[in-house]
Amino acid sequence: MADLPKAVHIMEVGPRDGLQIEARTLSADDKARLIGALVGAGISEIEVGSFVNPKAVPQMADTEEVIKRLPARPGVRYRALWLNPRGLERALATGKVHMEGRLTLTASEIFVKRNTNRTIEQTIAEMPQWIGQYKAAGIKVDGLGLMAAFGCNFEGDIPGERVVGLVERTASLMREHGCELEHLLLADTMGWANPAQIQRLIGEIRQRWPRMALKLHLHDTRGLAMANAFAAISLGVTEFDAAIGGLGGCPFAGHKGAAGNICTEDLAFMCEEMGVETGIDLDALVAAAQLAEELVGHPLPSKLAKGGTLRRFRSR
Amino acid sequence: MADLPKAVHIMEVGPRDGLQIEARTLSADDKARLIGALVGAGISEIEVGSFVNPKAVPQMADTEEVIKRLPARPGVRYRALWLNPRGLERALATGKVHMEGRLTLTASEIFVKRNTNRTIEQTIAEMPQWIGQYKAAGIKVDGLGLMAAFGCNFEGDIPGERVVGLVERTASLMREHGCELEHLLLADTMGWANPAQIQRLIGEIRQRWPRMALKLHLHDTRGLAMANAFAAISLGVTEFDAAIGGLGGCPFAGHKGAAGNICTEDLAFMCEEMGVETGIDLDALVAAAQLAEELVGHPLPSKLAKGGTLRRFRSR
Repeated sequence: MADLPKAVHIMEVGPRDGLQIEARTLSADDKARLIGALVGAGISEIEVGSFVNPKAVPQMADTEEVIKRLPARPGVRYRALWLNPRGLERALATGKVHMEGRLTLTASEIFVKRNTNRTIEQTIAEMPQWIGQYKAAGIKVDGLGLMAAFGCNFEGDIPGERVVGLVERTASLMREHGCELEHLLLADTMGWANPAQIQRLIGEIRQRWPRMALKLHLHDTRGLAMANAFAAISLGVTEFDAAIGGLGGCPFAGHKGAAGNICTEDLAFMCEEMGVETGIDLDALVAAAQLAEELVGHPLPSKLAKGGTLRRFRSR
Repeated sequence: MADLPKAVHIMEVGPRDGLQIEARTLSADDKARLIGALVGAGISEIEVGSFVNPKAVPQMADTEEVIKRLPARPGVRYRALWLNPRGLERALATGKVHMEGRLTLTASEIFVKRNTNRTIEQTIAEMPQWIGQYKAAGIKVDGLGLMAAFGCNFEGDIPGERVVGLVERTASLMREHGCELEHLLLADTMGWANPAQIQRLIGEIRQRWPRMALKLHLHDTRGLAMANAFAAISLGVTEFDAAIGGLGGCPFAGHKGAAGNICTEDLAFMCEEMGVETGIDLDALVAAAQLAEELVGHPLPSKLAKGGTLRRFRSR
């Protein structure tokens, strides 16, 4: 039976990973309102936008404006995404984004080529430059984010050995440049992972790097996100990305109408019901999910927002 | 890590448990068409209707007509629900329903009173009559179905000890009447279960009755059905109810708009991806889910029907 951790930390990615594929572009005010509701519900880390080419992702063009509207709150980290040095500069310039020196790699050769016009080898070859840029900005480099780590709509299954091999190469390269790989994010970008695969890969990583902090970014494309999260939690994984209401999807994965990221409130509810603390007020989180639905103007996949928390039944 | 079973058996309950709450009443022809599509996808056991009061559940009034339209297929069991001796007679009269001598009990005092106007004690007191009726019809009595076994919208949490106690009492009563309790169905009728609770309760039941065949009937009301299923499968549970497209809900549970039963195709997909056989053709099952959506006239919660199976990506 599961040996569950005491607490799980959920980073909210809806305002970035979720809203970027919505047909309706929200105003900076509405984005800030949604982020405020999330913070009010006890979410302590939020990806609030991205500093990327506004032509490629117009929904994120106003990230600076959104961040201006966010109050500094003790214990709350605002996060953002960047893909090039210009984006990193923009994030630094806000003075309010929590900076993290995380390198990024994609486990699918075809997917990385489509998205970034680079091969896996070229991406690895650019890592020293990234390390240099982070160091110059005073940012500690200690993380790797590995996209499409479980499978790819363009390439098919991604073997666990390839993932372990890419982590190994990155860890060596980082060591050569005076950094240590301590945080590994595995992203199931296109919803290929299953719970048994999740547990096998966690096992392989743990065997090789017993002290590596693992984080999962799960998508519910084929309905397995919650089972995958439980499979990981039951092996002691305590960090997850999730999107309010289940916002999201992958704009570059050739999928229309499919479900998005794992839903923040459903994941938080599962944790809390199992006695795993999240620091989140579930009823306030459901209200934030309802606000998200209202703002995007269509129903979201969230189950808890429709089924309701159990608090009102228990307090009878 | 999970020690997974070789195979899982899924009983489809959509045509009964699912369709009974739909606003649109399907014709017998359409129901038979949906059931035919499910059988064609490899589903080998299907609850095709119920023999209950047509005033209470008008959607099921034509169950005899539906059954007349179903071809006898070797290896395929058609199942039905009955709640009183008249219903049992109607099921027997079809000559095509697979008869099972399963007693039924509800773990929530308030819920059973609301639904059947009986207390738990009164329900237990009626069991000898049921055993007599099954015996008279030549049906072996060896099962118990326990509703609301994990929690109740009207009563709150249902402690595991109560479940174990009710199973114990039923097993004793059956033994006194010359039967043996061998099959236990635990139903999370209102979507209260969480994976840790599922694993605890399975553990308690296994400790007390090591050879009891366990089956789960899960609802996705709050998004935990798939995680609950994985939690059970990882402890060796191999029997599940599920509804195509995620049809369903509980008409008597005071819930509007909430998700229904665990979705057959999502569950089958999870099993197959983990190497656990179901005997199901996933692409044909997705087509059956799309037919179900078309027949009920609104989107269903299924994820796989939107995200798609992985076959087409793997065969590239």
